Amino acid sequence: MEKKMYPGGILQYIPFFYVIWSDDLLSVSEINVVQKAIKQDKGLTKDEAATLNSWLNIKQPPADETLKNWKHIVSNSKVRLVESNTYPLTTLSQNVVCHYYNECPFNDSLKYIEVNLGIQPNHYNHLFDVEVDHEITSDYYDASEIDTILKGKHAPVIDGFRAALDKPIFAWDIHRKKEKFREIVLKQVQFLAHKGFGAMAYPQAYGGTGDMEGYATIFENMMYVDGSLTIKFGVQFGLFGGSIQKLGTKKHHDKYLKKAGTADLLGCFAMTETGHGSNVRGIKTTATFDKTSDNIIIHTPGKNDNKEYIGNALHSKMASVFAQLIVNGKNEGVHAILVPVRDEKHELLPGVTIEDNGYKLGLNGVDNGKIWFNQVAVPRENLLNKYGTITDKGEYHSDIKNPNKRFFTMLGTLVGGRICVARAGLGGAKMSLTIAIKHALKRRQFNDSVKIQEDLLMDYPTHQLRLTPLVASAYVYHVTLDKMMEVYCDDSQPDKRKVETQVAGLKSIITWYANNTIQECREACGGKGYLIENRIADLKGDVDIFTTFEGDNNVLLQLAAKGVLSDFKAEFNSAGFSSVLKVLAKQLSDKLSNINPMYSNKVDKEHLYNPKFHKHAFDYRTRRLTYTLAMRIRSYIKKGIPSYQAFLKVQTHLLALGKAYSIELAYRTFADFAETIKDEKYRALFEKLGTLYALYEIRKDAAWYLEQGYIGSSKSKAIRQRVERLCTELRPHIDVLVDGFGIPKHCMSAPVAN
Amino acid sequence: MEKKMYPGGILQYIPFFYVIWSDDLLSVSEINVVQKAIKQDKGLTKDEAATLNSWLNIKQPPADETLKNWKHIVSNSKVRLVESNTYPLTTLSQNVVCHYYNECPFNDSLKYIEVNLGIQPNHYNHLFDVEVDHEITSDYYDASEIDTILKGKHAPVIDGFRAALDKPIFAWDIHRKKEKFREIVLKQVQFLAHKGFGAMAYPQAYGGTGDMEGYATIFENMMYVDGSLTIKFGVQFGLFGGSIQKLGTKKHHDKYLKKAGTADLLGCFAMTETGHGSNVRGIKTTATFDKTSDNIIIHTPGKNDNKEYIGNALHSKMASVFAQLIVNGKNEGVHAILVPVRDEKHELLPGVTIEDNGYKLGLNGVDNGKIWFNQVAVPRENLLNKYGTITDKGEYHSDIKNPNKRFFTMLGTLVGGRICVARAGLGGAKMSLTIAIKHALKRRQFNDSVKIQEDLLMDYPTHQLRLTPLVASAYVYHVTLDKMMEVYCDDSQPDKRKVETQVAGLKSIITWYANNTIQECREACGGKGYLIENRIADLKGDVDIFTTFEGDNNVLLQLAAKGVLSDFKAEFNSAGFSSVLKVLAKQLSDKLSNINPMYSNKVDKEHLYNPKFHKHAFDYRTRRLTYTLAMRIRSYIKKGIPSYQAFLKVQTHLLALGKAYSIELAYRTFADFAETIKDEKYRALFEKLGTLYALYEIRKDAAWYLEQGYIGSSKSKAIRQRVERLCTELRPHIDVLVDGFGIPKHCMSAPVAN
Repeated sequence: MEKKMYPGGILQYIPFFYVIWSDDLLSVSEINVVQKAIKQDKGLTKDEAATLNSWLNIKQPPADETLKNWKHIVSNSKVRLVESNTYPLTTLSQNVVCHYYNECPFNDSLKYIEVNLGIQPNHYNHLFDVEVDHEITSDYYDASEIDTILKGKHAPVIDGFRAALDKPIFAWDIHRKKEKFREIVLKQVQFLAHKGFGAMAYPQAYGGTGDMEGYATIFENMMYVDGSLTIKFGVQFGLFGGSIQKLGTKKHHDKYLKKAGTADLLGCFAMTETGHGSNVRGIKTTATFDKTSDNIIIHTPGKNDNKEYIGNALHSKMASVFAQLIVNGKNEGVHAILVPVRDEKHELLPGVTIEDNGYKLGLNGVDNGKIWFNQVAVPRENLLNKYGTITDKGEYHSDIKNPNKRFFTMLGTLVGGRICVARAGLGGAKMSLTIAIKHALKRRQFNDSVKIQEDLLMDYPTHQLRLTPLVASAYVYHVTLDKMMEVYCDDSQPDKRKVETQVAGLKSIITWYANNTIQECREACGGKGYLIENRIADLKGDVDIFTTFEGDNNVLLQLAAKGVLSDFKAEFNSAGFSSVLKVLAKQLSDKLSNINPMYSNKVDKEHLYNPKFHKHAFDYRTRRLTYTLAMRIRSYIKKGIPSYQAFLKVQTHLLALGKAYSIELAYRTFADFAETIKDEKYRALFEKLGTLYALYEIRKDAAWYLEQGYIGSSKSKAIRQRVERLCTELRPHIDVLVDGFGIPKHCMSAPVAN
Repeated sequence: MEKKMYPGGILQYIPFFYVIWSDDLLSVSEINVVQKAIKQDKGLTKDEAATLNSWLNIKQPPADETLKNWKHIVSNSKVRLVESNTYPLTTLSQNVVCHYYNECPFNDSLKYIEVNLGIQPNHYNHLFDVEVDHEITSDYYDASEIDTILKGKHAPVIDGFRAALDKPIFAWDIHRKKEKFREIVLKQVQFLAHKGFGAMAYPQAYGGTGDMEGYATIFENMMYVDGSLTIKFGVQFGLFGGSIQKLGTKKHHDKYLKKAGTADLLGCFAMTETGHGSNVRGIKTTATFDKTSDNIIIHTPGKNDNKEYIGNALHSKMASVFAQLIVNGKNEGVHAILVPVRDEKHELLPGVTIEDNGYKLGLNGVDNGKIWFNQVAVPRENLLNKYGTITDKGEYHSDIKNPNKRFFTMLGTLVGGRICVARAGLGGAKMSLTIAIKHALKRRQFNDSVKIQEDLLMDYPTHQLRLTPLVASAYVYHVTLDKMMEVYCDDSQPDKRKVETQVAGLKSIITWYANNTIQECREACGGKGYLIENRIADLKGDVDIFTTFEGDNNVLLQLAAKGVLSDFKAEFNSAGFSSVLKVLAKQLSDKLSNINPMYSNKVDKEHLYNPKFHKHAFDYRTRRLTYTLAMRIRSYIKKGIPSYQAFLKVQTHLLALGKAYSIELAYRTFADFAETIKDEKYRALFEKLGTLYALYEIRKDAAWYLEQGYIGSSKSKAIRQRVERLCTELRPHIDVLVDGFGIPKHCMSAPVAN
């Protein structure tokens, strides 16, 4: 082997050149960074600069023998690599020169390369045979700063709530018997209610602070204690109390809302029936007004028309029952009625039958049950009559004449619950990511026998790739859900249809994301993840149902897609539709005009990391799917196929559009938020997380983008490599990133993470 | 609207033409089928034939108004559509003509179209506004015939075993307390042992029938009762007994094997340690030979070096302990030693500590525990000494001189266990698919209000798409695992390295498949799937760990990929490697030469359904990934990067190769098997399942194929559409397909499926 030694000016660049050329990824923009550094380096002679530049030709890379020589020079210097140095590679270079020439200048041009290429010690610490002073995490970022950014204006509420969780009553334990588990969860709910957390979203007059947004944030934090607590809490205050607040009028508020908020009146939300989880309009339970007695008669017509999976069913005194309201023989559609179900002794009232749903995959601390009503009479005033009432004369009256619109207005008031479910799923994902990553930063795996210490699990590229994009997604969804709740609560925007569409889609993609994440974390922890004591198993069981309750995800995504379609005011059977399509086609061709071969094969880092590219890619997908969907439906309808059947034929297309729309929405919301972060250092971190999310999502749908010709082969491969590279770049900060979720220490009971 | 009526000759084709043109998918080959039928139809006049042919021009399809008129004619006839007719569409056509002309000839040309296009009632029953006599399933195929094909030569064993499961001891129930659950499972294991099932794989002299293949099939069927039973059974007879059988010699067999097979000697298999689940070579437990006492001293050096997750730990009297064997101060590598752990009173022996692992996500009927040994002495003869022994003189001796080879030979004997784990996972997948599909054939969902009856869940395209490819995969994996066990048990092939590589990969993809399938089924059953009584929840918890035990899937896939690489005798640091690469490059360019634009955009049905295309696509992927992987590793090594680090850098590439290789293997095995089915009707069914599997898998990796230019945009889209279409075509047979798994009625306890 040639054993060439270089003058100091060149030598200081050798470690950098070895790292650069050993790596897979060397784009033009990266070459430019190095060229610029060389140009700026006043310490180099012209010849030295020329030699260095001659090693930057992608078409003629340095020979393997040259590389081996470089490595040899670095290794032979016996210089230590200290990861905790501020600029580890620059310092290493400095010390190598120092070793051979006894001169130790710190070169800013090298620092420039190190910073601008984002080279991290874990990129190169294995490339040289030098001793490495490892560190598990970098302290460049501060977890509490990140937590503060995420908490935003809700910091006081969240901090107060997290502190409240440090009580023995919330200490985590294994509960196998549902009866005992439910008792404990009930006490936890009551405890929080007495602290004022239950009523938070209600007006001050009823014990609350009117802070629905804050309520959503504590919902997420509750998951760090337990899923059953979270769901039972949501049923009592969000669904039961929420139905009184939002569907009832002052008489109901005065009589029940305060007691609901303190959990002194326990109630359930009896909407779902078997076969009518997502199709509420088709429920069978009837509420027939009887003029003579001035009562409403609640009745379950058939054995299988019972209310099903009703949370809080065994502890409740009252139920908010959804039923077909029949007044003077006419079905006025679904309305909610307050029905007492148990007396003071907690015995079932006449005509009411309640059965335990038994054990479930998770949430066994929630008392789900089935409820039947046999001609149960309640006073007329028990009708929650904000959107439809029965007058003193016994006539039905509603200000919303269109029954369809009335129904959706009522249901729309419950959209907040969907945001909360997504937040709870996100809380579960954050918790499991924190456990899995803490574990991966402790656990060592086998490697070659040469090294004494085994590698940390987190240092494996596959491990980085499986967990890091999920961490980035948690950040994106956190910010998105905060924003959605803000929009939902904005009284200056009374028309909630758009936010309903958005929430339907986001609830789907986020609860699926949560399930996938928890599963990935389970597997990433191996056998340890399987033990109940390590929490992931419970999270998995609890979060699993989030994909099907509060609206089945597949149904919700179709709802979202239909919302997107109707945004274009598409009326599928009318002439107006053609003009809508023309507009769409025009917009799309504007987009398409950008997709020339130059664009679809642009692989430089600046382009791939640019939010403009991400937004364009997501926007293009949503529009393209909308357009082709509309065209397909139109073509079916023109052939005489009824619209219901036409929609059935394009079901998978609808799902794709629903997902595409939701991902675009999440990314845009996050990217806009990142821009507002004042501290440049943290803004850069959030932007990197956004970039990882965007490229990861584009990568997941690469087949579609390739099919459309939106990206070419080389771009597709470059995106895959960039995703891997970003995961590596974030490796030093991964511990801080999960600490940034702010999960209180007193909730981190998993032995595997401690 | 034009209300044109046609002469009878044309009229009879109208329902067919309406179906064909309403559909999305009309390829040239489908047009050909119709043209051929028209040509063969002697009842048509020349003019009629010409009119019909004029409606078969893809570039000029019939006008929408014409289509509407066709629909009107059919709907107006008020003819019923009877799905149970042998040729429902031909019969419908016949009756439409009959209605208008009072002539009712059955036309074989129409039948020809119906059969050759694979048109099913669910393709068109919603297209006409006619009354439909629905049926949930077709009786074209017979489930017991399918079951017979799957059972093959193992039918007597499987039938006998399934019958044995019809005992009260196997009745399914909810068990929340692990102690009670474990007692029940132990009794089940003992019951099966006394029936002779435990010893099946052992030689006749020790109570068995030497039928390892049969043993694997009952392993799968055991999952229909319970996962804990399956795993405990596998630990006792496969791992503990298996280690005596395969690593021990006659003295061990004579003393222990029969008692192990009858469960009179309960034992555990103490291999795994924390941090050394997949890296067995690095375990810390020592077995030091003490010449003076002629004993082997078993010892756990550190607190965290205990044996971990050991199944049967609380019930065992004896453990087969894997430890570093040290003889005369030299570490001879990992060996297994039989160590008594409890006395007759079931009290722990001196020096042995065993702790319960506590509750887990699943398998709570298995008593997993941690074991520590503190200087526990056992006689020298307790060393399972088939591959390495300590002589009477106190010297270590092995016929296999290379310690590496010795280690892998020992471990290789345990590969059967991995096949069994994959089979158990498959059993779980079959069970959950059967439950979800039976449910989807009962449960009705909302549709438009016009129709009285709501649609069956199974009639939704999204539902078909989420479940049908999983059913097809179950068939493919069943056949593949049968074949693998046959190869593994074939004594004429003593070199098991190849089958080890294959099993490592298959275990990974099949256990992941099983988990995904169970999750999909859980969600497909909505809230019902969440209830423990419906079994899917338990299956989910039990099968989950299969992805990480008996070798973590990510580690196994890398093992498989390395096996593929070494198949090419690649020696990465030597000159020989270049010549291997040359051969590979040559083979690859042979493959690539086929990929001209004609090929990559070939979208006709004949091509897409042709096993030659599937095999080519899978083979191309494996080879291409092997080649590029080898090139990347070679390039790293040339630059002086150590081979361990080089492999780390290509980790994700290794995983991709491991998966690609395994999927190709599974498909090839299945396709070869399908060819051997004698009955043409069933052969066609199996071929269709194979086609669905192949296209579904190619579709999943479409991004890669598009990146390579192996398929073009239009082919990629056509594959997606064909997957959807195949799911629809299989819809009438889906019930029979899950019944074909042969799950005994007495095991189908889930209320949701009954």
